[in-house]
Amino acid sequence: MKDQADISEIMEDIGRRARAASREIAIAPPEAKSAALTHAADLLIERTPEIIAANADDLSFGRDNGLSGAMLDRLMLDEARIFAIAEALRAIAAQPDPVGAVMDAWDRPSGLHIERVRTPLGVIGVIYESRPNVTADAGALCLKSGNAVILRGGSESFHSSGAIHACLVEGLTRAGLPVDAIQRVPTRDRAAVSEMLTMTDHIDVIVPRGGKGLVGLVQREARVPVFAHLEGIVHIYIDKDADPEVALKVVLNAKTRRTGICGAAECLLIHQDVANTIGQGVIRALLEKGVEVQADEMLGAIEGTVPASEESWGKEFLDMIIAARVVPDLDAAMGHIARYGSDHTDCIVTANPETAERFLTEVDSAIVMVNVSTQFADGGEFGMGAEIGIATGRLHARGPVGAEQLTSFKYRVRGSGTVRT
Amino acid sequence: MKDQADISEIMEDIGRRARAASREIAIAPPEAKSAALTHAADLLIERTPEIIAANADDLSFGRDNGLSGAMLDRLMLDEARIFAIAEALRAIAAQPDPVGAVMDAWDRPSGLHIERVRTPLGVIGVIYESRPNVTADAGALCLKSGNAVILRGGSESFHSSGAIHACLVEGLTRAGLPVDAIQRVPTRDRAAVSEMLTMTDHIDVIVPRGGKGLVGLVQREARVPVFAHLEGIVHIYIDKDADPEVALKVVLNAKTRRTGICGAAECLLIHQDVANTIGQGVIRALLEKGVEVQADEMLGAIEGTVPASEESWGKEFLDMIIAARVVPDLDAAMGHIARYGSDHTDCIVTANPETAERFLTEVDSAIVMVNVSTQFADGGEFGMGAEIGIATGRLHARGPVGAEQLTSFKYRVRGSGTVRT
Repeated sequence: MKDQADISEIMEDIGRRARAASREIAIAPPEAKSAALTHAADLLIERTPEIIAANADDLSFGRDNGLSGAMLDRLMLDEARIFAIAEALRAIAAQPDPVGAVMDAWDRPSGLHIERVRTPLGVIGVIYESRPNVTADAGALCLKSGNAVILRGGSESFHSSGAIHACLVEGLTRAGLPVDAIQRVPTRDRAAVSEMLTMTDHIDVIVPRGGKGLVGLVQREARVPVFAHLEGIVHIYIDKDADPEVALKVVLNAKTRRTGICGAAECLLIHQDVANTIGQGVIRALLEKGVEVQADEMLGAIEGTVPASEESWGKEFLDMIIAARVVPDLDAAMGHIARYGSDHTDCIVTANPETAERFLTEVDSAIVMVNVSTQFADGGEFGMGAEIGIATGRLHARGPVGAEQLTSFKYRVRGSGTVRT
Repeated sequence: MKDQADISEIMEDIGRRARAASREIAIAPPEAKSAALTHAADLLIERTPEIIAANADDLSFGRDNGLSGAMLDRLMLDEARIFAIAEALRAIAAQPDPVGAVMDAWDRPSGLHIERVRTPLGVIGVIYESRPNVTADAGALCLKSGNAVILRGGSESFHSSGAIHACLVEGLTRAGLPVDAIQRVPTRDRAAVSEMLTMTDHIDVIVPRGGKGLVGLVQREARVPVFAHLEGIVHIYIDKDADPEVALKVVLNAKTRRTGICGAAECLLIHQDVANTIGQGVIRALLEKGVEVQADEMLGAIEGTVPASEESWGKEFLDMIIAARVVPDLDAAMGHIARYGSDHTDCIVTANPETAERFLTEVDSAIVMVNVSTQFADGGEFGMGAEIGIATGRLHARGPVGAEQLTSFKYRVRGSGTVRT
């Protein structure tokens, strides 16, 4: 544990080096950036045993600190997962380079030729939980988009993230790029996060991925602009016009396929007209699968449910638990989502196109779905390649944040001595 | 002058009403929004005499407070300018409605159909200087983009902005839309600005347009996300391969066509190889036009110039004044722009395509130009219609900010009971 003055100094130094590296990386050749990522992928495979050993240290630290099963699952690395991380790096390497891409071009009657082209943002600070793969994804996406990045992962993933970060740095070196383009905060001390949030000279945007603790800290302390990545408090509303088969398939998949991801459903809202028919069937199926159902009074009549409390609503369980409530109509369902949701992903099950349209229009979440498992809330499933997370704010980035969302743009205007009358 | 507690209460009330109105305006029919703007335009024309009278009060207040000629010019309204403001409202009314527009749509092998559609941002706070036309443009653009807006113009334009705002409000009423969608801070007290900067519950983004005083305040106090609109510290670099005719035309137009706009050139950088040829000719022409040239030592040899000081660089004169300096090469020119510029608009005059390309790529300003008068830095000239200003930040909005830049987006995903394997 270091004292505050030390941490300020460490972070100031990291920031200055990131700013300097950002200027080089902004104009680095696309091939060099891809080469760095490919080298890093090779290194990850080569060093799989060391990474698994580092991860074992983290897992034991995590168990000692009482991490939940879902959190330990997010933290765990094995050969298959490391292979998947390496594959993700190769996929990012193979994607088109966004920097300099012409988004739009047009001519004006004045004689001007105008282009809108993508540019990097500068220096990105990523603050995330104990998911080691984010170290690779975030580092790679920031590099691909011509940005320098400062990574600060959860303390439980300290060793795993360090081992992965070392591969990225070695990749940069082999490709002749500045190693300071992908830096990692070398301390578990939370004071480093506070520093990052106020480093307006050295960091252009913070991407915070995490739960309520981090969000509160960001809201209180952030001076640097933020792309919010709140938790995924994902709702599914079963409408009175829902198809029973669709409701059953979608809810079961959305809750149980993988409980530890942010697209996992956490709350089920059921129209009162179908509570005793479709609703009851879905809840019984969830219970059979081993899901704990925290039910409101009406659904509490179903054997096996446990009573919901006020804490059940708006909670990201990330586990085999779901909250369930009966609502009188669509407006009440949307009202519940507006009050308890996190603007991440919300879904309606209905066969009524007008109801679907209202839900899609009026629910203001990054991703709104009709008759789709919310587990599809994922950049890969959207066809965007790797993502740094699902942005829940409405500024700049929203939904899955891939390399393109980590860029800005500028206007390039050409004339021939063109003057304005 | 009201005391701080009163102002907090007033702003809290405005904020709450804006948030409520934002929900209605987000789903208002496009025709209603257009009708409100057309009515407002009619009212502006009808009420031209009252608006000019209100403006006369402001002008006399401005003169008493020592506003510069350029500032008084920005503040002044006459029949022609009010007509132009009304025409701008009609043009915005006639533009396509951005809300709900499908930006992109695609199918996935999983069976998902995904659309990316534009959505409003929510509540926008606009803080600007004493330019009454911004009241109309900002109010109209926020409405068009489905946002509620809180307008806070410079105190010297208090009466003119009030008269224009009244037309917008009456337009909303006639169109059956909530009048709280376009609100104006009803006090000149600067404390209201500090309130706006911290109203995170009620304001989603602040658009600050102003000079260093406002920028400093925003940097110290803003808790609400900000689209920065710095001053336009616009540079023109005359390269050694510049065409002499082009240099002369571009610089004269960029400096003298209209000095009070943010695209007006403020600093001239001249490659040393052409300082005594092209540079001398351009500076003599500026002097002949009545421009004060604050010259560095080398250019100071030209009769009629005045010596530059350190304050000459990075200054927005908004007047018949330009700073001028000789630089050894392109890198020095870009270094000067990086150090003293405001990331707004910068231009190179050169006939060398490689030099142009380097300038366009490496100068990180919202608008970079080759052989074009910087007075074209304007949403209208870009073909975007009216603008709220030229954003100089790199997040979300950059360059001319029209209705589209005031929107976010979301993903609408449709399936048919589609589940993830």
